[in-house]
Amino acid sequence: MIYLDNSATTKPFDDVIDSYVKVSTSYFGNPSSLHGIGGQAEKLLSQSRTQIASLLHVKPQEIIFTSGGSEGNNFAIKGIALQYQNRGKHIITTSIEHPSVSEACKQLTDLGFEITYLPVDKNGVVSIESLKDEIREDTILVSIIHVNNEVGSIQPIEEIGRLLEKYPKIIYHVDHVQGIGKTYLDFHKAKLDLCTISGHKFNGLKGTGVLFVRQGVRIQSLISGGDQEMQKRAGTENVAGLVSLAKALRLTMEKRDEAIHHLTALKKAIIQSLLKMNGVKIHTPEDSSAPHIINFSIDGLKPEVFVHLLEEQEIYVSTTSACSSKKNEPSKTLLAMGVPEVEANSSIRISLSHESKMEEVPILINAIEIAIQKLQNVMGERNGI
Amino acid sequence: MIYLDNSATTKPFDDVIDSYVKVSTSYFGNPSSLHGIGGQAEKLLSQSRTQIASLLHVKPQEIIFTSGGSEGNNFAIKGIALQYQNRGKHIITTSIEHPSVSEACKQLTDLGFEITYLPVDKNGVVSIESLKDEIREDTILVSIIHVNNEVGSIQPIEEIGRLLEKYPKIIYHVDHVQGIGKTYLDFHKAKLDLCTISGHKFNGLKGTGVLFVRQGVRIQSLISGGDQEMQKRAGTENVAGLVSLAKALRLTMEKRDEAIHHLTALKKAIIQSLLKMNGVKIHTPEDSSAPHIINFSIDGLKPEVFVHLLEEQEIYVSTTSACSSKKNEPSKTLLAMGVPEVEANSSIRISLSHESKMEEVPILINAIEIAIQKLQNVMGERNGI
Repeated sequence: MIYLDNSATTKPFDDVIDSYVKVSTSYFGNPSSLHGIGGQAEKLLSQSRTQIASLLHVKPQEIIFTSGGSEGNNFAIKGIALQYQNRGKHIITTSIEHPSVSEACKQLTDLGFEITYLPVDKNGVVSIESLKDEIREDTILVSIIHVNNEVGSIQPIEEIGRLLEKYPKIIYHVDHVQGIGKTYLDFHKAKLDLCTISGHKFNGLKGTGVLFVRQGVRIQSLISGGDQEMQKRAGTENVAGLVSLAKALRLTMEKRDEAIHHLTALKKAIIQSLLKMNGVKIHTPEDSSAPHIINFSIDGLKPEVFVHLLEEQEIYVSTTSACSSKKNEPSKTLLAMGVPEVEANSSIRISLSHESKMEEVPILINAIEIAIQKLQNVMGERNGI
Repeated sequence: MIYLDNSATTKPFDDVIDSYVKVSTSYFGNPSSLHGIGGQAEKLLSQSRTQIASLLHVKPQEIIFTSGGSEGNNFAIKGIALQYQNRGKHIITTSIEHPSVSEACKQLTDLGFEITYLPVDKNGVVSIESLKDEIREDTILVSIIHVNNEVGSIQPIEEIGRLLEKYPKIIYHVDHVQGIGKTYLDFHKAKLDLCTISGHKFNGLKGTGVLFVRQGVRIQSLISGGDQEMQKRAGTENVAGLVSLAKALRLTMEKRDEAIHHLTALKKAIIQSLLKMNGVKIHTPEDSSAPHIINFSIDGLKPEVFVHLLEEQEIYVSTTSACSSKKNEPSKTLLAMGVPEVEANSSIRISLSHESKMEEVPILINAIEIAIQKLQNVMGERNGI
């Protein structure tokens, strides 16, 4: 089996699962309980928070545990919008966000907020100029995806941060879900106020995530109630999940340099081979793109059929983002990049893992060739050839 | 060790952890992915949903997975408020709710909502009459806790449901987090529109829960984005967590009759022994209370000190709800019941599990007597006696 849908989800590290089991079994207390069983859980929670903070070079009190990327993005956007609505009701984001950002913004329009969606160029990248042009007196939030989940384009997060420094009343949120472990992002240099990450995208467990909230940034809770998570996110903490998140992040960061190097080589080899095939169009930009995502179309290909033909050869890829794969709609990101609708409707996403192997590349390429051949035969038969 | 803080959290069943590990290891796919690895995860998710629905005697499409009780309550209250705000902006709840309900309501006042908090009698129970009196033209939601988490009082959920049937425009939400497995609640008979449960309160895992949303009830998403959970709750599903939740619920429901019988006997034995002690006041009402919670005060007792004295004897109890235990405030529920502040400030909560044993009762009682004796000695020394 060759699993190449790592942007949808990754296989958890064995060590991560082991940590989860150990904590769930032996440290099941509620961290808010006053007694020692609660205290042990609280201690683990606090250690995990400190470890995550240290790996991200931020402060422990800036780490808010969540149930994942969608909660983190909703929390950031709705929490800031409601907190600072008296300052203004204008939000700027891009036209290539994950649905958990774009849908959260859409919901806010019901409460009187106005949303500006920045366009992207043919490489799937926003321009600083267009952002500058859209900033208004009443802009309170700019939310930008770091690595686009469909094509892998990277936004100029640091440059945007430098621009926004001139607008101290604007809060800056970055969706870093696809970027972490596969790119470098310095939260301080990029002047981030908020940043979302999700455990299961870097070999952690589903249902775990972090929202970084810079000290001094106030935010309304999405989930309010008890005083957990610096009074920002209520609910009994998923201690085992969070210990496992810390472990997944440590293992990921330890191998980040090596992983990026390896993924870059794999991606290059795959793209080079794809380009040799007839009718293949690569949508992932050559520069400014993450090393683990390759998005391409093949003329006349029905992407669902293609996914299943590769699956017959035990290779697992995706048509688009997992969130949208059952919608049967053209890729929003590709359309925003100006890709024709027929191609935006038929794109395939390969998303690599640090565990992907160079020896798998020829197997993948061969499988793609076989799949194309089969599709052409079927179409040939249909056309009576 | 005798763990008697089961209303704060419970120890997960071994089988529940085993299921979690099996799914995380062997079925790690994203249920939204089109290929077979996603399909296997989707199948498990769907089976779990069906099983939970069947255990609760509702439809699978009425089961929305959440990250726990606090998310469920926030989702229910904010989601209904925002969905139906054009009908009216008045919400009725009680003065003895869990903070995830009362704080969610409080947040809504910023958006122009008005909240009525129903009083309770000395047994911690709301009256149907007072509810009837507070219903207005613009009331859109009634949210009632089933079993109070501090004293265990049970609200007349079915009677309230029958009353609300006459007001078809009012949505009825019940926080069933402390009730499930320890009481009987028929969602249909009680005419519930929404109902919150949380996995870790019945030997499931932290970070897992369910919001029941009756078919036909529309609700705005708290976490919006992808189309997961009937488009009501976005985010890659925590498949392993949800499979484990289904297992925990099945095991809980299978032993519910027996558990209730056993817990009732334990509670009776503990209360009888406590009543024989000097200066003990039981706050949990004799009737209309859940079988697993016993709340009491002892004259002049400092509850944190008392918790630690019991802990020295390896018995783990709580001062109040875990969410509030570090706040050092008097119990909101006890104050609402008219308990004097000095007692509301010094209450102890024992919360039993189906695994608690009758043989542990004399050990507990003896430990309480030793703790009281120690406290009296200390106080005697302080008073120079």
